[in-house]
Amino acid sequence: MSYNTFGRVFRFTTWGESHGPAIGAVVDGCPPGIALDEAAIQPWLDRRRPGTSRFTTQRREPDQVRILSGVFDGRTTGTPISLMIENVDQRSKDYSEVAQAYRPGHADYAYDAKYGFRDYRGGGRSSARETASRVAAGAVARLVVPQVRIRAWVEAIGDDTIDPANFDDAQIDANPFFCPDAAAAARWEEKVDAARKAGSSLGAVVACEATGVPAGWGAPLYAKLDSELAAAAMSINAVKGVEIGDGFAAAALSGEENADRMRPGANGPAFLANHAGGIAGGIATGQPIRLRVAFKPTSSILTPVETITRDGAAAEIATRGRHDPCVGIRGVPVVEAMVALVLADQALLHRAQCG
Amino acid sequence: MSYNTFGRVFRFTTWGESHGPAIGAVVDGCPPGIALDEAAIQPWLDRRRPGTSRFTTQRREPDQVRILSGVFDGRTTGTPISLMIENVDQRSKDYSEVAQAYRPGHADYAYDAKYGFRDYRGGGRSSARETASRVAAGAVARLVVPQVRIRAWVEAIGDDTIDPANFDDAQIDANPFFCPDAAAAARWEEKVDAARKAGSSLGAVVACEATGVPAGWGAPLYAKLDSELAAAAMSINAVKGVEIGDGFAAAALSGEENADRMRPGANGPAFLANHAGGIAGGIATGQPIRLRVAFKPTSSILTPVETITRDGAAAEIATRGRHDPCVGIRGVPVVEAMVALVLADQALLHRAQCG
Amino acid sequence: MSYNTFGRVFRFTTWGESHGPAIGAVVDGCPPGIALDEAAIQPWLDRRRPGTSRFTTQRREPDQVRILSGVFDGRTTGTPISLMIENVDQRSKDYSEVAQAYRPGHADYAYDAKYGFRDYRGGGRSSARETASRVAAGAVARLVVPQVRIRAWVEAIGDDTIDPANFDDAQIDANPFFCPDAAAAARWEEKVDAARKAGSSLGAVVACEATGVPAGWGAPLYAKLDSELAAAAMSINAVKGVEIGDGFAAAALSGEENADRMRPGANGPAFLANHAGGIAGGIATGQPIRLRVAFKPTSSILTPVETITRDGAAAEIATRGRHDPCVGIRGVPVVEAMVALVLADQALLHRAQCG
Amino acid sequence: MSYNTFGRVFRFTTWGESHGPAIGAVVDGCPPGIALDEAAIQPWLDRRRPGTSRFTTQRREPDQVRILSGVFDGRTTGTPISLMIENVDQRSKDYSEVAQAYRPGHADYAYDAKYGFRDYRGGGRSSARETASRVAAGAVARLVVPQVRIRAWVEAIGDDTIDPANFDDAQIDANPFFCPDAAAAARWEEKVDAARKAGSSLGAVVACEATGVPAGWGAPLYAKLDSELAAAAMSINAVKGVEIGDGFAAAALSGEENADRMRPGANGPAFLANHAGGIAGGIATGQPIRLRVAFKPTSSILTPVETITRDGAAAEIATRGRHDPCVGIRGVPVVEAMVALVLADQALLHRAQCG
Repeated sequence: MSYNTFGRVFRFTTWGESHGPAIGAVVDGCPPGIALDEAAIQPWLDRRRPGTSRFTTQRREPDQVRILSGVFDGRTTGTPISLMIENVDQRSKDYSEVAQAYRPGHADYAYDAKYGFRDYRGGGRSSARETASRVAAGAVARLVVPQVRIRAWVEAIGDDTIDPANFDDAQIDANPFFCPDAAAAARWEEKVDAARKAGSSLGAVVACEATGVPAGWGAPLYAKLDSELAAAAMSINAVKGVEIGDGFAAAALSGEENADRMRPGANGPAFLANHAGGIAGGIATGQPIRLRVAFKPTSSILTPVETITRDGAAAEIATRGRHDPCVGIRGVPVVEAMVALVLADQALLHRAQCG
Repeated sequence: MSYNTFGRVFRFTTWGESHGPAIGAVVDGCPPGIALDEAAIQPWLDRRRPGTSRFTTQRREPDQVRILSGVFDGRTTGTPISLMIENVDQRSKDYSEVAQAYRPGHADYAYDAKYGFRDYRGGGRSSARETASRVAAGAVARLVVPQVRIRAWVEAIGDDTIDPANFDDAQIDANPFFCPDAAAAARWEEKVDAARKAGSSLGAVVACEATGVPAGWGAPLYAKLDSELAAAAMSINAVKGVEIGDGFAAAALSGEENADRMRPGANGPAFLANHAGGIAGGIATGQPIRLRVAFKPTSSILTPVETITRDGAAAEIATRGRHDPCVGIRGVPVVEAMVALVLADQALLHRAQCG
Repeated sequence: MSYNTFGRVFRFTTWGESHGPAIGAVVDGCPPGIALDEAAIQPWLDRRRPGTSRFTTQRREPDQVRILSGVFDGRTTGTPISLMIENVDQRSKDYSEVAQAYRPGHADYAYDAKYGFRDYRGGGRSSARETASRVAAGAVARLVVPQVRIRAWVEAIGDDTIDPANFDDAQIDANPFFCPDAAAAARWEEKVDAARKAGSSLGAVVACEATGVPAGWGAPLYAKLDSELAAAAMSINAVKGVEIGDGFAAAALSGEENADRMRPGANGPAFLANHAGGIAGGIATGQPIRLRVAFKPTSSILTPVETITRDGAAAEIATRGRHDPCVGIRGVPVVEAMVALVLADQALLHRAQCG
Repeated sequence: MSYNTFGRVFRFTTWGESHGPAIGAVVDGCPPGIALDEAAIQPWLDRRRPGTSRFTTQRREPDQVRILSGVFDGRTTGTPISLMIENVDQRSKDYSEVAQAYRPGHADYAYDAKYGFRDYRGGGRSSARETASRVAAGAVARLVVPQVRIRAWVEAIGDDTIDPANFDDAQIDANPFFCPDAAAAARWEEKVDAARKAGSSLGAVVACEATGVPAGWGAPLYAKLDSELAAAAMSINAVKGVEIGDGFAAAALSGEENADRMRPGANGPAFLANHAGGIAGGIATGQPIRLRVAFKPTSSILTPVETITRDGAAAEIATRGRHDPCVGIRGVPVVEAMVALVLADQALLHRAQCG
């Protein structure tokens, strides 16, 4: 079943395809009385918007959001909030090639295998364009948990990783890569340009930190905060890996090394480390929540690759059109949005059970 | 809310604590007419059972499963299947220390922060003992998707990884580490012994492969197979990282390298690679499903570590008692079970929507 | 939590208020490959449309539906179907009275008690206008279960009930009351006119029958077909009672009278009666599904009634504006839609579990 | 799909058949810190227990509940509460007749049509025995909403209804019929005896009132309190009708008659009537919640009735064994339990969204 809803009590449902008339989200379960208008959502969409630099797709979308319901006199009413973003730049082109042959790495073959056919225009439902709906919904989620600050950045493009010693929060929004390391950003400019010109693409690692999450949010086992965050991150197009805290590196540590020791602190414990990424037993410890997300390289590349047609014949395909040379870059606001959506949901769930 | 249910139409709910009278699971939505008795479940539990070697906890549990409902004349009836495993070896001991002080890396502090108090006996609900319920439920799930073969193994303990060249499927059940590389298994014997004797513990990486999954299972976006598998794996105690296919390594590849090229094959495409781990756009491609799961080192260690008490005073704590020196080892049957549970659910969902 | 989603695998979510820019629904889980365009939905909306006779509200809404996603080349793709209906005739008026004083029988006071404030324009989310979204979604549901024929009608307005001896299916769409008894329709004309002129309103009973539902759809207990239909019907504005089969009358029968005896039939049993309304143990028996639904009289009446203001002061209020003198009449297409939505969901669920 | 879970955040799942080893429920999402032991549940089970008078089935079940998880030191921990009741009196008998022929009015044929076969011993999953699990879960729910008082009674057996003028709350637990009218109880003794001796059975109407529900619980539309209560009541075996407030009688009222007028009161409005049954727009108004539930006559009767066999041959069947002559009587504690379960869930949901 194509479930397109995420969340338990603060829930959102997205709809829309790359080349349909519009995309959107319905946010349900939002508390009433929160100040909300389009201006509170638009800046987050603008951060994700395509066409803002030569390092993202050249599709020109204003990504102007409209609130169609759930808000009255500038405040949420507690009823579903319908958000719509019109598709403006669905450039008419010839899709006959992609309609007939499967692009390796893409969802083309899998969709055909599942549904018998597919909307091949620009990737249809599997297009990264869907993530604009998440960012819009995420902007609402942020308002539900105003005490939380969520900050993501690109940690690596391809095999080139930032130097933690250079980490500067102020840099993140100062370059087209959401890169906190100015030196790395300079290198990436060349690197991404080269990939773009070669008709190739690059993967990326996005890191995210949420501070201000109170100890106690989350829940054991099947609603573990780790599990919800992993599901949220993995639901984003092109994501193939998630780590909470030290993640795979923790597997190489000993129990003593991995233990986040505690000392008496002002409010609860003062932790001496945060290998756990702020989550123990699925529940927030009050430390910063930390996660890392791996984006594979964009599947749409100009370089021709071996494939087959719908009829099973051998073929070669090159994906012409406008594509992100590194889809992970614009993943930054999307990861932030998903984290906000998980935390808003968990905040309400915690209040439900624990008052 | 402490959701303890997993799945959408093939669903299971687990209950029980380490030191209560029993643990169990209720499996709902199982198709009718499937041959099922305790003997079909017990072997899987036996693989996970504690106390079978000196490399796992010395708690002695027979882990004998009883089917209390949902089966008649040896076949599933389509009604909920209640599975119960009695706790036998809840050794009486003095819990005053762990009741008062928080074990770093453990769920102790987080549970107290959330619920105001906790069942401190043996970890309560956060104990790895809960995973026996998953293995029992997973045994039922396997019967729902008999065409699928699911196989997990330990790929690394601490920083010592197997040599893929030595991979031998027959080895996996031939040593106490579920290790497919005989040479590595020999090294790990020493390594785990050393950690155990030092009162330390080790992390591990578990890999899993599911073959026979037909192209088409899974669904876009919020029910992406990647997302469901990540949520499933991350819901296991001590797991902090999940990768599908190449995972984080894919982030370092170029689009051409990462493309799983296709040639005409006997049934659908013959893929030339499987960087995607058998999933594209959230939907199975028919290739083997591949994932990797990172287990942190067991938090319960004999080495004393700095901590605080419930009253906020400075303290030191060493976790006496019987613990797995490397909880990832017994994670192998648990990862397999979770993969089986996800696939059974997705198989039914696919049938619901696509006939 | 204001859950605005209905269904388990064939699910829909509605959004929108009476006086916002639009209302709509997102249908998720629809099987792929079903022929669908606006023309397949519009006729059902036209049946529910206000302003078609003097016996319904005089609000003039074209209720033109737009499909924004989930359809490609005239067929459903298996991805979410977004349906939108613009609000055209939100006549500007002075809402100061209704903003300040609670209309008895209305949701006004309850919304304020829950949310702290409310969108008072035309009833906001509690307006019967929301049911247009259900009718649109229901039109899609019908296409999922084409073997089923769903037919509802008004059985009583106020205390005036049709004569079963006069039942004529062809009459139902031949008068403005969806009344299968021409004689009753004639009487109702006067009755509803009188109520309208007196500034009063009337309740109604709607009956519904679904034929062609195969034995086996439905499920025991918490997803009993009776339970799903009751939830569906009771979720409609103004509904306060539901009966399956003989309903309350069955409580006055003896076991022998109530037993639906069986004889050998062509395909399964030939039933001699249908007291159970086509459902036994929560599962369809293959007989027609029969239910009855009670609509209370429209709460919006011109007759002034005693009430209080938001500040707790005594007041009197008369609801001016355009209202249905008998909201049950336009309930007919809504009940049909909800039955279609339940059956589409159950059809897919049955296929999921029982193949 | 045989969903056996009810509730959104306070959820319970039941399992078990009439003649299996045990039945039970898992309660999930219960707030932590609530005093709970078996003694807090047992009295509610004792009220429902069979064999306590000659007017209920003569099956002798102690219905002793055991808490297997979720409670520590006499308080709920916030983790799932597993409740188990052993089946003791599964009298061995010859089921060959009922295995072969379908009992009219029973779930026999429908189960076979759905699942291909069924557990025919004592009704299997469709047995009223399952309701013991609901009563146990409901006892926990009551503790979640201690401010609410829930009281149900039998209002009619067959066509003999109580006289409201005789209503005496103290009578309800003073006779074997949960009848608030002593005169009616006397009449019913004869009536039920006569039915029992004739091998017949009787239907019943159960009424229920919940006081102390604060204005604001509930939610619009698909989680309307009316809808949740209707689904809950209709999920009980043998229930075929539900009314909220005046229910079907409201359909015969005019808008003025049905309006629950308000005057200034001490805390919120003083209502002059309660036609709405304490719910407007799906949300509690603070008035008593009132509902009525119709139980059909027990399907198991000694009188032989015409039927068919599994092979489609004509047959006649009489249901020997121990059965309730009027299953609605023991429905009283079950309706109360379901109302408690709905209200506990809604209380937590309200807290989630509205703080």
